[in-house]
Amino acid sequence: MPEKMIPGKHLWFFDYFPGGDVGLFMRISNMVHSQQTRYQRIDIFDNPTLGRVFALDGITMTTDADEFMYHEMLAHVPMFSHPNPVSVLIVGGGDGGTLREVLRHPGVKRAVLCEIDEQVVEAARQYLKTSESFDDKRAEFAYENGADYVKRFKNEFDVIIIDSTDPTAGEGGHLFTQEFYKSCFDALREDGILTVQAENALYDFGWTKITHRRISSVFPIVKAYQGFVPTYPSGYWLYIFASKNIDPVENFRYDDAKNMSQKLKYYNEELHKACFVLPNFIKNELKGKM
Amino acid sequence: MPEKMIPGKHLWFFDYFPGGDVGLFMRISNMVHSQQTRYQRIDIFDNPTLGRVFALDGITMTTDADEFMYHEMLAHVPMFSHPNPVSVLIVGGGDGGTLREVLRHPGVKRAVLCEIDEQVVEAARQYLKTSESFDDKRAEFAYENGADYVKRFKNEFDVIIIDSTDPTAGEGGHLFTQEFYKSCFDALREDGILTVQAENALYDFGWTKITHRRISSVFPIVKAYQGFVPTYPSGYWLYIFASKNIDPVENFRYDDAKNMSQKLKYYNEELHKACFVLPNFIKNELKGKM
Repeated sequence: MPEKMIPGKHLWFFDYFPGGDVGLFMRISNMVHSQQTRYQRIDIFDNPTLGRVFALDGITMTTDADEFMYHEMLAHVPMFSHPNPVSVLIVGGGDGGTLREVLRHPGVKRAVLCEIDEQVVEAARQYLKTSESFDDKRAEFAYENGADYVKRFKNEFDVIIIDSTDPTAGEGGHLFTQEFYKSCFDALREDGILTVQAENALYDFGWTKITHRRISSVFPIVKAYQGFVPTYPSGYWLYIFASKNIDPVENFRYDDAKNMSQKLKYYNEELHKACFVLPNFIKNELKGKM
Repeated sequence: MPEKMIPGKHLWFFDYFPGGDVGLFMRISNMVHSQQTRYQRIDIFDNPTLGRVFALDGITMTTDADEFMYHEMLAHVPMFSHPNPVSVLIVGGGDGGTLREVLRHPGVKRAVLCEIDEQVVEAARQYLKTSESFDDKRAEFAYENGADYVKRFKNEFDVIIIDSTDPTAGEGGHLFTQEFYKSCFDALREDGILTVQAENALYDFGWTKITHRRISSVFPIVKAYQGFVPTYPSGYWLYIFASKNIDPVENFRYDDAKNMSQKLKYYNEELHKACFVLPNFIKNELKGKM
């Protein structure tokens, strides 16, 4: 009997995808941290194949093996589409991976991480490598509901990135409303760009479509793009890019993207364009402003 | 307690990814067919989210929800890269999905499905919608080891598609050797194209690299491309395109691809180019003839 099959020897984690009939299982070789906060349950454990895994309310947020795929695509597509991003707001993203990617851009003077749950940031600082940029002096932390926070700003940020949990989990729902997207529009400067994680086309496609429609009612330019994130439901993730005037395919900083991609593991200047080319069944559902 | 959690009420299927520490679980709402053949175990069942699922030796081969993503990308990229494919060989693919896509091309006069296990073809005919083209009069069936079969032909086929199971499962290993790729080269006509399913970049990347290297030692033009297949390990699948003289990005039948893509759910003429743009960590490992 393989060592891992000995009854009672191991813990297992089950990430149930929406519907509850399909999901990903992972063996827990080392349970690192488990905690109930005011908002959600935090679990951090190690898996022999994926490395350290971080989950909220039983939903996988990051693993060492693939967090870069998600964070690089969420951050660099808007950052290289903007001509000169100086002031950036990240809503959610308490693990720090998106912040790390944003702070790779030398022109950034200020990056605010607005995370509702301070305990997530604390756990990340203690247990996750994605927190490596927390001490960068350009990073600021705000612990509150992102929808309330963004309402207080007008004409303030160049790029806003929504790195939320699922709309149906915990406090995530606040970050998927039309009112929230309108607040983001108002908080952005003239060349402002909003990018949101927008779920997947198999288990959560209803949410992708709702998100796309709501953002399209607020921003003049809206385009969906794709990337791989093996430990998220379906492994295939969608993002929505929205802007006041910038087209991300026609007008991105190609040379800067090419330069930085030398240091990156996923994103590159050719993918920046290719990621906007979607399969028919997705393209046909996300009509309108595409 | 949710209905699906009632103890003893349901069967579950666990697809263990290589390593055995991560995998996909699916609830079996209806067990359709289970059989041990001379070569492998066949399981066919229904899942509320994925529809009908077909597995060999515990490894998911097709589901209603995503089989088109795999079959369209495996078939149409080589078929639209060839100027006029008339004679096609499919090795493996007993479910019939690749055959269905190949036979969409009106110029095809002969499509041979060489599947080692006749029982797979029989089970597909009885239980899987992917078998819908089995009665097309252009389809031929050969029940033998693909490596032996292809050796008997010289200058015979325009396109050969390897739709195999994993190299480590059952008889799959025969279809990943350099000798086999050399036989394929010899069995192809002047403008011949070989395309193989080439595993994934997270759980089986070693096999992707070996496959790429072996094919590169036989064919002058070799390029890897990507697609999503949510129920395969990682959800992100790699394919290798190899040819005697055709570059699939520079020289494909754009107008024909655009026309047919009206009827397809995944593949389109823009994706034909975009699917060859790979993330850095894959591109950097598959150097050489890329």
